[in-house]
Parts: sequence; structure tokens; C-alpha cells
Amino acid sequence: MNNNPSPSAERVVHVPLGDRSYDILIGSGLVARAGAEIATRLKGRKAAVITDANVGALYLDVLMRSLADAGFQAVSLTLPAGEKTKSFEHLMTACDALLDARIERNDAVIALGGGVIGDLTGFAAGIVRRGLRFVQLPTSLLAQVDSSVGGKTGINTRHGKNLVGVFYQPDLVLADTDVLNTLSEREFRAGYAEVAKYGLIDKPDFFSWLETNWRDVFSGGAARTEAIAVSCQAKSDVVAADERENGQRALLNLGHTFGHALEAATNYDSARLVHGEAVSIGMVLAHQFSARLNLASPDDGMRVATHLKTVGLPVSMNEIPGDLPPAEVLMDAIAQDKKVKSGKLTFILTRGIGQSFVADDVPASEVLSFLREKHPR
Amino acid sequence: MNNNPSPSAERVVHVPLGDRSYDILIGSGLVARAGAEIATRLKGRKAAVITDANVGALYLDVLMRSLADAGFQAVSLTLPAGEKTKSFEHLMTACDALLDARIERNDAVIALGGGVIGDLTGFAAGIVRRGLRFVQLPTSLLAQVDSSVGGKTGINTRHGKNLVGVFYQPDLVLADTDVLNTLSEREFRAGYAEVAKYGLIDKPDFFSWLETNWRDVFSGGAARTEAIAVSCQAKSDVVAADERENGQRALLNLGHTFGHALEAATNYDSARLVHGEAVSIGMVLAHQFSARLNLASPDDGMRVATHLKTVGLPVSMNEIPGDLPPAEVLMDAIAQDKKVKSGKLTFILTRGIGQSFVADDVPASEVLSFLREKHPR
Repeated sequence: MNNNPSPSAERVVHVPLGDRSYDILIGSGLVARAGAEIATRLKGRKAAVITDANVGALYLDVLMRSLADAGFQAVSLTLPAGEKTKSFEHLMTACDALLDARIERNDAVIALGGGVIGDLTGFAAGIVRRGLRFVQLPTSLLAQVDSSVGGKTGINTRHGKNLVGVFYQPDLVLADTDVLNTLSEREFRAGYAEVAKYGLIDKPDFFSWLETNWRDVFSGGAARTEAIAVSCQAKSDVVAADERENGQRALLNLGHTFGHALEAATNYDSARLVHGEAVSIGMVLAHQFSARLNLASPDDGMRVATHLKTVGLPVSMNEIPGDLPPAEVLMDAIAQDKKVKSGKLTFILTRGIGQSFVADDVPASEVLSFLREKHPR
Repeated sequence: MNNNPSPSAERVVHVPLGDRSYDILIGSGLVARAGAEIATRLKGRKAAVITDANVGALYLDVLMRSLADAGFQAVSLTLPAGEKTKSFEHLMTACDALLDARIERNDAVIALGGGVIGDLTGFAAGIVRRGLRFVQLPTSLLAQVDSSVGGKTGINTRHGKNLVGVFYQPDLVLADTDVLNTLSEREFRAGYAEVAKYGLIDKPDFFSWLETNWRDVFSGGAARTEAIAVSCQAKSDVVAADERENGQRALLNLGHTFGHALEAATNYDSARLVHGEAVSIGMVLAHQFSARLNLASPDDGMRVATHLKTVGLPVSMNEIPGDLPPAEVLMDAIAQDKKVKSGKLTFILTRGIGQSFVADDVPASEVLSFLREKHPR
């Protein structure tokens, strides 16, 4: 599949997973070129596009025309926008639509949207006929640098998020950098938190580069393409080393343990806190907590907070609108997320910018007293 | 996992699939020994059993006691018996039950039942938390020799059978030969058709052995264990060579192309025809059709029909109660099942007993005229 890198794509990241390897194309105008790019890689000539109402209104027509021009017989399904769409009910709807359209093993199932559409569509593609060809067209920065890479798909249940799903790799990811122009500032920033995360995990030079060039990343053009490509490459490296999340893939959770607890504490109310904002605060907390454990210099936590604040992201619990539950409740959420073994839990800590590591023996009591100290009250 | 073959199991078949390898234990009293067998192989100490009302009434108590004795904290879910249980609705129920019970990655999801329960439970085990440990306790002969081996899981939709599912291998299969004593004669015979199939595919000596020993297989004891072990080994060999069904696994469909058409023609009405009976007729038709194409001697088809008739299975379309649709309708069902390319279709044919092969250029017109000839009218 990587024998035919498109000359018109500005960057190509190859995800090497044996017979499940695939390319991520990153550049301008890829939605309009999608039909041609897919046609060179897939044998089938039927396609089903799944999108949501918001994204569909902007890009579905362009995509359908591109598919028709490339010789595809294509249908589309438009689902409601929002996290609630990641449900069994909409999974059924998606599966039925693929079967109604008689999509066969070599045809294309195409996700046009953010993480919700990508996760749901990938799950449907992974289970209809026990696996159909799958193409991602991620339309949010978060989806381009995170959820569209790595093969995790799934839905939510009343028990929690992403508790039902499959590991299922796409055959192609087309990250169109232009579509990010229609995101709100807040949504773009939220995705940017995950971009910065890759620097903080193990790429100190990339974090420095972001400190200098972040305005260009926000405004589009070559710096944006570069930032997305570096992020996709970083995630691809981790996924290739640990596809099914048994070890080092946990590094991708830097900032996420605190972040998930804050998302739960705000009832996943996006008016108060979205995922990327929670990760931003969580990454700052992870650096501060590492400093408290004498693993890292407090200066590193300051530097992380300064940069994230500069781009407009929240960096402390104080900035979350409304009241937060007490530290003990946040600690319970962390314990539920991570499982505590004999009073210890697994945490992503750091020795400094770009020096994160997996620690599996962090005392729960230390986490709790740190949370009490940082809690706004 | 195969370093600890149970000394008390009469036969062990190892299915070699790399890090997804597992053992099939075949013998007497395995339901009562299940807890101990699972405990030696899985780290977790929680278990969730999924069964149906018929099987549960007979064996659930014994299994739950065995699990408790082995130190498992176990819950159970009893679903309605019958093919209709392979639905999205019951899949949701099963997933919710596993999440309610807080089953984690190293705990056991246990299917206690026939093919319906095995397929549904395996699907749920494959998608909850993107994959839980899975143990099969198949309670029908068909499930022991066919559906519990190979990793196909799934549900039906209004579009057809098994159209949504995943490939997901169990960690252990316990085929208790005693539970087959409570099957009806008709159900046992139906499973026997698949046992005979393995002989007809590529084990002529096994088919001869069955001609001599079939009564002992039906009555239980060592011959039954032997027949199940040979069948599991045969399916395991095919699956190991072609896990995701790209090539030689198609041989397992011997008799199934005609068989599926007959099942569809009788609206899957089990009062008229069950799967194994359809396969029995289908295998005889496949041998007769091969003879008509001058590939095999008509004597082989006679020999197959004689043996299957002797054990009490139907061997011709005439024996199906009620009217069948015309040959053209059967042909349409075959074409839907197999996809016709330029008037040719893929078929499992044979050069004689135990000499089956995949033919991908069978003229649809030949199939139709053969069906017209054999059609009861």
C-alpha cells in the first residue's frame, strides 16, 4: 500500500503493522481527492460514507462527488452529532446501512467526521461480515492526531466510555488540513493539547518547536501539516510497538489519568470541560506531581503550563467553571479508571520535558494528598 | 497453555494459532470439572456464564458449583433458547451483563450451550473491553465438532445469518461427551452429518471407520470421544492453515452450498429441516453433482448416501416435508450465497470419498440443470 504514495499529499506517515499496515496522508484538499486516493488502494467500487449532521452539512457533497468521479457507487448515512451517537442503537443503524448497501469485503466504509464518527464507523466496519475495508477522513484536529491512528474503535454504555469495541485498523487515513479551518478556536485548541502531549512524552525538540511555531500551527499551512505529521508518526511508533496496549502504549495516557477524573467530575459536560482541556490540565498536574515526587524539576511543570496557557488552554483545576467534587471523589474516579493494587497504582510520570515513563507503584495516598493541595478551595 | 494437558481428559486437541493458541479437551464429566480446568489456565477469579433456558436447566447448577469450588466469583445469564437469540438485542443484554459483573480482561466469559450461545457469547467476549478471556462448553454435537472450533462468532440480522460478528478465538474449549446423552436423536444425527463431512473432505479412512463404528459413536463412550477428537483435529488443521477464511477453509463448506439453499427454501423452519440434515442432503448432492461432471464415480455418491441414510439422516430433497420452491429459486439462493462471476461460481466438489477440492469455475447453468433433475416433482 505504501508503494504508491500520492504525489499531491504533502506528507505520508506509514503505520507498519504487518498485513494490517496502512498510510496516513496529511495535506490540503484531501476530501475532494478522496475518491481517487481510495480507488488506487481498494479493489471494490462500492462505498458507504458515515458522517454526522454538522460535518455532513459542510463536506458530504464534496466527498460524494469525489467518490462518484472515481467510479464508486456510494451511499451515505448521516447520524446526529455528539458523544451520544457512540451507542449500541447507532451501531445497529450503521451496520444495517452497510448491509442495506450490500457493502462487501473489498468495498469501502468511510468515516467522515471527528472521533465519535470514527470510533463508531470503525466498529461497524470491523464487525459487518467480520471485517470490511475502512477509510478514515478525520475532520477534527483531535481525530487527526489521536483517535484516527491506532485502531481503537468502540461505543459507550451506561457503564462508561469505550467499554465495547474492537481493535480494527483502517486501510487508509486522509487527514485534510483545510477542514480544520472550520473548527471553533476552542475545538482546535483541545486537539492541540494532544499534539503537545507527543512532545512531552518523548520529543523535547518538538515541544520546543511548538513553543516557537504554535501560531503557524493554528493559522494553517506548512507548520500545521508538520505538527500533524509528527503527531501521527509519534502515535504510529507507539502503536506499532504495542498494538493491543499491553505496555508502552500506556505512555499515550500522559495527562489522561487526572484528565479522565476531571471529565467524570464535570459529568462530561462539554460546556464546562472538553477532553483536550482536561488533558491539558492533566498534563500540567502530571508534571507537578512528578516534581512533588522529586522526579522532575518544578521548572518543567512551569514551562508546560506557560505554553499551554499561551495557546489558550486551561492549566489548573481553578479554571474549570462551577464547583468540583472534593479531592476524595476525584481520587475514587482515578482508582476506578486504573485499578489500585495493594494501595499502588499505575501512572504516567516524567523526569522532565520529553522524558515520560510508566510507573506502576505510585502510592494512592500520595496522589490523594497532591489532589487535596491542588484542589480549588 | 498446552504445557498442562489435563490428565483426566480423555483427549486433547491443540489448536496452534500463535499467541491465540488453545486446547480443546474432550471427555466425560468436563462440566463438573470446568472450574478446575479454567482455574489452571486463567489468572482472573471472576466468571460470567451465558447459557440458554434449555441447557441451563440441565447443567447450570453443576457448572456454577464447579466454578465456586475452584474459587471463582461467578454470575450467570440465561437467554431464551433458539436461533432468534443471535440478535443485536441479546448481544446488548450479554454485554451489559458482563459489564455489570465487572468482568475484566483476565476473567472468564463462559458459553454453556450449543452454537447459538457459543456464537453470541464469543461475540460479546470479543467486544467487551475489546476482548475478554473466553471459554466454550459446547453442549450439542454440532457445536463440539464445528462451531466451537475456529473462532467465528456473530449474530443474525434481517439481511441474513452471521452477517455481523468477529473472529475471536477461545482460550479453552471443554467438550463434555456426557452432555450429548440428553440430545434428541434427531439433534445428535444432525451433528453427526458434520462429523461425516470431515471424512468426506480428506479423511477416507475416517469415513470407513465411521461406516463400521457409527453405532458406538451414537451410544457414547470411547468411539464417541474418538469421533469428536478427529473432527476437532480436522477443523483445527484447516483453521490453523487459514484462520480468516481466505482459501482452503472453504473446504469446510462441503455440502453447505446446496444445504444453505435448502435451509433458505424451507425458511429455516426446524420442523422441516435443521442445518445438519440440510448438510447431509447437500453432501450427497455434491457427490452426485461431481459424478455428473465426470469428476467422481457415481458409486461414491451411493456410498455416502447409504451411510447417511443408515444413521437416519435425509439424503435427498424428496425427504423434506412440504413443497420446495422450483429449481430456479434454489439456484437464486445459491447465487446469492456464493456470488456468480461471469456465470461461474465457486463450489466444493470431489474426486471421490475424502478427495474434496475447491472449484472456482463451476458453470451456473450446470448447477441449475442438475437441480432441475434432482428436484422432487
